[in-house]
Amino acid sequence: MGASLGLALRERAGTDVVLGVDPDPDALALAASRGAISEACALEDAVARAECVVLAAPVTALPDLAGRVLAASAADTLVTDLGSTKTGIMRSLDGEGRKRFIGGHPVCGGETSGPGAARADLFEGATWFLTPGAEARADLYERLHRMVAAVGARATAIAPEVHDRLMALVSHLPHVLASALVNQAAASAPEGREALDSAGPSFRDLTRVAGSNPELWADILLDNREAVVSEIEALGARLTRAAEALRAGDREWLAAELARGRAAHERLRAPRADAGPGGAITVAVPDRPGALSEIATALGHAHINIADLSLRPGPPGGVGTVVIELAGAGSAERAIALLAERGFAAEPHRAALH
Amino acid sequence: MGASLGLALRERAGTDVVLGVDPDPDALALAASRGAISEACALEDAVARAECVVLAAPVTALPDLAGRVLAASAADTLVTDLGSTKTGIMRSLDGEGRKRFIGGHPVCGGETSGPGAARADLFEGATWFLTPGAEARADLYERLHRMVAAVGARATAIAPEVHDRLMALVSHLPHVLASALVNQAAASAPEGREALDSAGPSFRDLTRVAGSNPELWADILLDNREAVVSEIEALGARLTRAAEALRAGDREWLAAELARGRAAHERLRAPRADAGPGGAITVAVPDRPGALSEIATALGHAHINIADLSLRPGPPGGVGTVVIELAGAGSAERAIALLAERGFAAEPHRAALH
Repeated sequence: MGASLGLALRERAGTDVVLGVDPDPDALALAASRGAISEACALEDAVARAECVVLAAPVTALPDLAGRVLAASAADTLVTDLGSTKTGIMRSLDGEGRKRFIGGHPVCGGETSGPGAARADLFEGATWFLTPGAEARADLYERLHRMVAAVGARATAIAPEVHDRLMALVSHLPHVLASALVNQAAASAPEGREALDSAGPSFRDLTRVAGSNPELWADILLDNREAVVSEIEALGARLTRAAEALRAGDREWLAAELARGRAAHERLRAPRADAGPGGAITVAVPDRPGALSEIATALGHAHINIADLSLRPGPPGGVGTVVIELAGAGSAERAIALLAERGFAAEPHRAALH
Repeated sequence: MGASLGLALRERAGTDVVLGVDPDPDALALAASRGAISEACALEDAVARAECVVLAAPVTALPDLAGRVLAASAADTLVTDLGSTKTGIMRSLDGEGRKRFIGGHPVCGGETSGPGAARADLFEGATWFLTPGAEARADLYERLHRMVAAVGARATAIAPEVHDRLMALVSHLPHVLASALVNQAAASAPEGREALDSAGPSFRDLTRVAGSNPELWADILLDNREAVVSEIEALGARLTRAAEALRAGDREWLAAELARGRAAHERLRAPRADAGPGGAITVAVPDRPGALSEIATALGHAHINIADLSLRPGPPGGVGTVVIELAGAGSAERAIALLAERGFAAEPHRAALH
């Protein structure tokens, strides 16, 4: 995914210099030959030169790596990551990290990995979660938001714990399930007819994510184990309820459960409400750490999408403003009301954003 | 699916006359305008004229419908169905039905239904299960096999109980699961961030079948309730095992389970072994009911695919032969050995099939 980001930055976002760091020289050479990086570097060298460092590594490696990178980078360098879980890495940060590290997680499929599978359009239309902490610097958040938007993704701020609970449900549980299902089918052969060879197209869809990298996923699941276990248990309870209804011949409950499922499925397939323009707002941002994080996260939790944002700092210690361009009809009114509840003065923005 | 079969028969199999029967006149008019039927008929009229009657109706309606159709049809008319479960309908048959009714189940996705969604290529490459009973007439089985092959599907004979256990695992359980998952996501909103709106592409794949018709599916699940409950329980045990491993931090087990899942997934995606020609065999068929059913079902359970078959009846009460053209390298040798174990004399066929 690191190579896809390099490609997207260079081909779509007009970024000339993308420095590549990897312990595997073959991966670096391949990334360079595909144009995903402009130059292969040693870590300390790359980090010292970078405005923005993106860590694309297994989740277990991220805390140490983030510490090394924060120590080696300049005082104005943003550090972010692409990890699938966010609580662990955010909790591991020290004082400097809490200011300059902002977690990230682009939600985009892709069973394959490595620079050979890199695609410049991987992030187009994808949700890219950002987890700015309570001390995150506003200017670095703005920089990260711009980078994410520049590769076509929708930046959405979220609290790390909320992110991990959501991912437990919509990503980690499905991975566990797909594996369990396909293993159950592989182990079953009634009267010699192997179940796996009888699977139709819907089974193939359902188990597609079972093709993911087992080592990476074992780490992701363990990193988020509490939330994953809780979702497994909730699903187990739902399945038990369905089995009871089947045993009791309770057609009414079954049809109602399936109808609820279809309604939720239709909602999932509907075009996103945040597709169109939603107007711009101006919000007063007190000069304290994390004020912008709080604003962005409040909007993110409410599914109000920020298309672009632009900081206008105030006097030192005073109040600045941020102009936020929103997506989705009615977003400006909702955002103003929501921010007022949290004590932020927000109003419609009259002039053009830039 | 009835309309898709009509289209496929008329556009791809060279069948001129397809008589359509439906209680809904609008559905019939639409089927006629799309070319899926050549003529709309009353049931008794259509059945009296047909060589082959295909029942496309909800599984709960099939036993009564099959009884009516068998009573109204001629002594040489084949009756079959497209139902997703097979044990119930096969057990409901009377003496005449056991000779002339052969169950069918084309395994092809499609969330949408009705003549408006009909597609002539729906069956191309699909597995089409056939459940010939122990008294099924060989000539009618041959006729059904030809029809299925003519629309591009792979006819595969299977015992009804084996079919229903397999479908419980590879189709019915996935439907229950997709509903449960999407309902769990719809019901969850940690700190106001709705889970369903955070779902990425893998969740969408996994819950696609949640869009199926709830009323039809409630009946399918209930019709196969014993097998479905048993698969739900087996999956529950697998999920419990995964939750235990997560709680215990057992990375080794998790990575191994995920690796097994990936291997099974790769096998599922691999091109089918039965794609190429597999040679032809000649099998002696005693003139007793169900002999051909037994041969076809034995091959079906062993995943030996019959591309075509051609009966050459013997003298009344004596032994005829069937020439079976197989698909998949090495199939002829496997089939001959398997049939010998079951007391059928089989040998390689030397001449061309037709």
